[in-house]
Amino acid sequence: MNKNSSNTMALAPNTSSKRETVCIFGTGDFGRALGHKMIQSGYPVVFGSRSTQTSSLIPRGAEVFSHAEAAQKAAIIIIAIQRQHYNFLIPLAEILRGKVLVDVSNNLKINQYPESNAEYLAQLVPGAKVVKAFNTVSAWALQSGTLDASRQVFVCGDDMEAKQMVMDIVRALGLTPVDQGSLLAAQEIENYPLQLFPMWKFPILLSLGLTAFLFFYCLARDVIYPYVYDNKDFSFFIAISIPNRICPVLALILLALVYLPGVLAAIIQLYRGTKYHRFPDWLDKWMLCRKQLGLVALAFASLHVLYTLVIPIRFFVRWRISSRIVSQALNNKTEPLNTTNAWLSDSYLALGILGFFLFVLLGITSLPSVSNNVNWREFRFVQSKLGYLTLILCTAHTLVYGGNRFLSPSSYRWYLPNAYMLSLIVPCIVLVVKFVLIFPCLDKPLTRIRQGWERNPQYSEQSNYIINKSAV
Amino acid sequence: MNKNSSNTMALAPNTSSKRETVCIFGTGDFGRALGHKMIQSGYPVVFGSRSTQTSSLIPRGAEVFSHAEAAQKAAIIIIAIQRQHYNFLIPLAEILRGKVLVDVSNNLKINQYPESNAEYLAQLVPGAKVVKAFNTVSAWALQSGTLDASRQVFVCGDDMEAKQMVMDIVRALGLTPVDQGSLLAAQEIENYPLQLFPMWKFPILLSLGLTAFLFFYCLARDVIYPYVYDNKDFSFFIAISIPNRICPVLALILLALVYLPGVLAAIIQLYRGTKYHRFPDWLDKWMLCRKQLGLVALAFASLHVLYTLVIPIRFFVRWRISSRIVSQALNNKTEPLNTTNAWLSDSYLALGILGFFLFVLLGITSLPSVSNNVNWREFRFVQSKLGYLTLILCTAHTLVYGGNRFLSPSSYRWYLPNAYMLSLIVPCIVLVVKFVLIFPCLDKPLTRIRQGWERNPQYSEQSNYIINKSAV
Amino acid sequence: MNKNSSNTMALAPNTSSKRETVCIFGTGDFGRALGHKMIQSGYPVVFGSRSTQTSSLIPRGAEVFSHAEAAQKAAIIIIAIQRQHYNFLIPLAEILRGKVLVDVSNNLKINQYPESNAEYLAQLVPGAKVVKAFNTVSAWALQSGTLDASRQVFVCGDDMEAKQMVMDIVRALGLTPVDQGSLLAAQEIENYPLQLFPMWKFPILLSLGLTAFLFFYCLARDVIYPYVYDNKDFSFFIAISIPNRICPVLALILLALVYLPGVLAAIIQLYRGTKYHRFPDWLDKWMLCRKQLGLVALAFASLHVLYTLVIPIRFFVRWRISSRIVSQALNNKTEPLNTTNAWLSDSYLALGILGFFLFVLLGITSLPSVSNNVNWREFRFVQSKLGYLTLILCTAHTLVYGGNRFLSPSSYRWYLPNAYMLSLIVPCIVLVVKFVLIFPCLDKPLTRIRQGWERNPQYSEQSNYIINKSAV
Repeated sequence: MNKNSSNTMALAPNTSSKRETVCIFGTGDFGRALGHKMIQSGYPVVFGSRSTQTSSLIPRGAEVFSHAEAAQKAAIIIIAIQRQHYNFLIPLAEILRGKVLVDVSNNLKINQYPESNAEYLAQLVPGAKVVKAFNTVSAWALQSGTLDASRQVFVCGDDMEAKQMVMDIVRALGLTPVDQGSLLAAQEIENYPLQLFPMWKFPILLSLGLTAFLFFYCLARDVIYPYVYDNKDFSFFIAISIPNRICPVLALILLALVYLPGVLAAIIQLYRGTKYHRFPDWLDKWMLCRKQLGLVALAFASLHVLYTLVIPIRFFVRWRISSRIVSQALNNKTEPLNTTNAWLSDSYLALGILGFFLFVLLGITSLPSVSNNVNWREFRFVQSKLGYLTLILCTAHTLVYGGNRFLSPSSYRWYLPNAYMLSLIVPCIVLVVKFVLIFPCLDKPLTRIRQGWERNPQYSEQSNYIINKSAV
Repeated sequence: MNKNSSNTMALAPNTSSKRETVCIFGTGDFGRALGHKMIQSGYPVVFGSRSTQTSSLIPRGAEVFSHAEAAQKAAIIIIAIQRQHYNFLIPLAEILRGKVLVDVSNNLKINQYPESNAEYLAQLVPGAKVVKAFNTVSAWALQSGTLDASRQVFVCGDDMEAKQMVMDIVRALGLTPVDQGSLLAAQEIENYPLQLFPMWKFPILLSLGLTAFLFFYCLARDVIYPYVYDNKDFSFFIAISIPNRICPVLALILLALVYLPGVLAAIIQLYRGTKYHRFPDWLDKWMLCRKQLGLVALAFASLHVLYTLVIPIRFFVRWRISSRIVSQALNNKTEPLNTTNAWLSDSYLALGILGFFLFVLLGITSLPSVSNNVNWREFRFVQSKLGYLTLILCTAHTLVYGGNRFLSPSSYRWYLPNAYMLSLIVPCIVLVVKFVLIFPCLDKPLTRIRQGWERNPQYSEQSNYIINKSAV
Repeated sequence: MNKNSSNTMALAPNTSSKRETVCIFGTGDFGRALGHKMIQSGYPVVFGSRSTQTSSLIPRGAEVFSHAEAAQKAAIIIIAIQRQHYNFLIPLAEILRGKVLVDVSNNLKINQYPESNAEYLAQLVPGAKVVKAFNTVSAWALQSGTLDASRQVFVCGDDMEAKQMVMDIVRALGLTPVDQGSLLAAQEIENYPLQLFPMWKFPILLSLGLTAFLFFYCLARDVIYPYVYDNKDFSFFIAISIPNRICPVLALILLALVYLPGVLAAIIQLYRGTKYHRFPDWLDKWMLCRKQLGLVALAFASLHVLYTLVIPIRFFVRWRISSRIVSQALNNKTEPLNTTNAWLSDSYLALGILGFFLFVLLGITSLPSVSNNVNWREFRFVQSKLGYLTLILCTAHTLVYGGNRFLSPSSYRWYLPNAYMLSLIVPCIVLVVKFVLIFPCLDKPLTRIRQGWERNPQYSEQSNYIINKSAV
């Protein structure tokens, strides 16, 4: 083994085991919290500040100097000040040459500035090695040690050695560094802590809108109609009966909406005869939030299951059953078993149970740690094959639930059909179109298109190799 | 700090932030998809191809050259062509000397060739640095950006710097590189995307077989027997009643089969007096799929819970209860509370609930992200102690469910015992043998054997140190 | 690209692809298991031992030499002997100079020695490069290949190249190396395999204590009282009825205890006027086990749900309902629907369902793989906003369950109130105090304190920047 290379590579860590001094510019909340944590982890810390008098706020063991003095005492300088004050660093450029500057800043809005704070810093002090880090950690968490959330610290920077030095500090503080590559990633890293479930916005808004619509729809049919015509007070239906109508409808519609964009994409590709044109923007966005749509659907399905299972405990249901039995006993009659009803009731329950079971399986495989452990072939098998099976079972569950009530006029109050009938429209369309697309006359060209084939080819070299990498 | 080492190490990333040109050999589907994605991420891309005319398929911004010309423009060359055409690279060997060749190919079958494609490539072009990468990503996913499945890209290669350069590209494309070590790992990486749940095959086939057997067994007892002897049509039992007999039986048998190989292994070790002989192959394989067996058992247990909880909603059950009550009322009699039945009913339900609860806990701890966060001692505690407790509770649940029906002749139709009686055989054997193995006269030698002690020792140095590392 | 740097960097991996010889000191169980696994993975292995005669225990393919001879044959030496025998290495110091020594040892107790075994080894052989690794893997698992638990191998060491070499071996054995930084981390790595759910101790002991107390409390009220006064035998309540009183009470109290420390911390900070004083120790510890408290609460809530859903299947419940109906029929009376009771029953069920649903959501987001994928803002939103909503829903569920029974004297047997009344104390206190803390006159100073403001400031530079990093 080359002794020399070994020695030069070993230098950095050997010195780091003695914990090199770290300098922090700025004695604000985050700078102090970081300094405090570093002192705990065995790093000598110096603060660079405008006023050099030590205060009770400065963590015990740290010293305060002017910016220029502090910078000279350390190879790593953490810039814990706001972006708008960065230009005070320009006069220090000569002192900062070759130093590692760690940008920990965050903004108040996503994409607030044209370039990321870290890239701006790199422009201001071109001789320094800028590394972006620590911006995803909260000062409060550092101070209190209660790091319940992610311990991940995203690190990026153009200088590999500087990045390594910062990642060593991150690790020493008990956090997990995640290398995000070059400084180009800084913009994304700075936007990250400002996001609030961006992919969930559309599915949640959509389901809220549908929930509101269905609530008033069911309220009219199930509470207002009997009150107006029979003067019966069923207002307590608001608590369980109506939610238990809304949840399955939403679950089925949202589940169908997970598979609709795939079907639309196939039609568009067949029509265009190529996969090399971009889909319309709305379709792209829709496809990207399919997982979230599916999970919201699963949430509604779970609520439906819970609402259904408590039915026999409900006071109203017990009252209704017992009053029926009492009236039977008083009328001295016993009903024989209606086998058709037994079949309908049992099979719609069984379809629902199997559908829900597969739905939960789909949900489990979408957990990050599970989906990271399956390959593409397995993921596609679960999400496509099992997914369509779930959709078929849930649609069948709803159809059998309807049973012989579809044509009964009593199902139409104020000409409004039952809510579950509305829920069948989208899944039936998806299933019919998907069924048509399975026919070889459509499936074959589609498969070839997805392998790169074009209806009007201008160029074709090795266009259908690596077959097993292509279909959805 | 050694200034020189710092400079040479910093070179690669500094230049990579300007995004070095990448060359792609092959203009097939995957090559184009990769090129498209790279151009999006800011890499200049050149294609090497037999015919050098640019076509509409080539991503905008890329240029097409002959293979030799293209290779000279880049340090990294992605070989997006099939293995059988690799030999066209032999004449280019001189140009490719020192270049990084990225093998992205996949095969159609597991272990299709004696050596991996990447190793074959390394033999063909010995002067180049071959890195295996990108083969687990689908062209479709790259193109459409819908990377729902794993973003992991396995990377392996013998040259560390070359591997680092490829990993930087992977990261720049928004994917997660996972370093798998040297090129020896290429075979496994190439097999990975071809697998379809290999560990699940045995548990799923076994449970399908058992399900089929039990279905016909229960059909005979519960549907055909009453039809033949009482002319009653209970065909609707197929939907819920029979599945709810099959599921708990399968759950209990499969759970017992999780613990049976451990018990067998202990007996074999006690008999042989050493742990240094390999177990028979079937036992090794069985032990390796215990987790999957357990999860399939959990799936059946969950279905059993759902099937059981919908019982009171079933039309048949409601009809049976109401006709019983009506006949009681008509006969003018009230039954007193049978406390024994209340005890039996409540305790079998309570045992089932506790058993299922622990079973779900076991399932949660087998999630990769959870089991990665526990150490061996904790994992063993959960999977062994809690696992046996679950088995005991579930067996007791079944025993109490049987209650005083075991000896009643009405339980034996056509001399066939109830299905739950069959399910008790395996778990009772496992529990009895395990109970016997706990006795000190057997437990002590077993513990010593597992710490490396041998009954006929030929050699013994420090054989029982690190005691806390040994037992199952 | 600098050709020279490329060559020196490439050396190590190129040679490692030929698999360099590894030396193992010690032929005990763990050393043999590791040697066996390494030979399987293609490494030439030599053992260093006191007695150099090869025995049947030594894995086939390995050779045994004296310590000095063996050490000279390899660059990496694995020290598979106990700490108390380490001093035999002192005479070998000259031979071990520059070698990589891998410390794989474990202790029997947490913090058994003042310094970690690896640091002790580094002191004894100062010329060697000590790396800590493999101590979290079990010999049994290595031998049998059944690595169900974590495949993570924690690696730490001061020499970066040595660490890299060890990490390559770890990877080659099919395990996942996790770089933990410098040798300072060895103490923690050595303690890791000895832990048994340290954070779970307090929540589990607390809930066991509360369970025992509540069990006897409910036993007195629900079994002994009716036996003494009415001579009724309700002993079977022990199986389901009493657990179903204990579980919801514990779930609600533990959930409230998750949010109580946050409220206490806010009061302390408001009183002190600063966040820069440490909380009392008990509060710190309490805050650190909030996640575990919440998960135990979720476990009790899940049991409560299961116990509740089986109610209609219980023999006792069916008997009670049918005897009520029969007596109604015999008395020839039909009850009209009591809408108030229907409202109370439905709304307490609905509140419970929604509360449990949110509770499960909180549980899912606390899975490591999920919480690693959300940023601080999202985590805070879920754990704080959704958490309080869950607490409100569950408290309301309990209040509505009580309904008009709170004041009825029959609820007080032996002057003991119902258990659910006891459970309301803590959550009501937490909710009232939290409600008070939301008022602007308290919320504003609290927010400023958490951003670093102090009531008696001595020093203030940039104290409230990075606003979005502060609040809990």
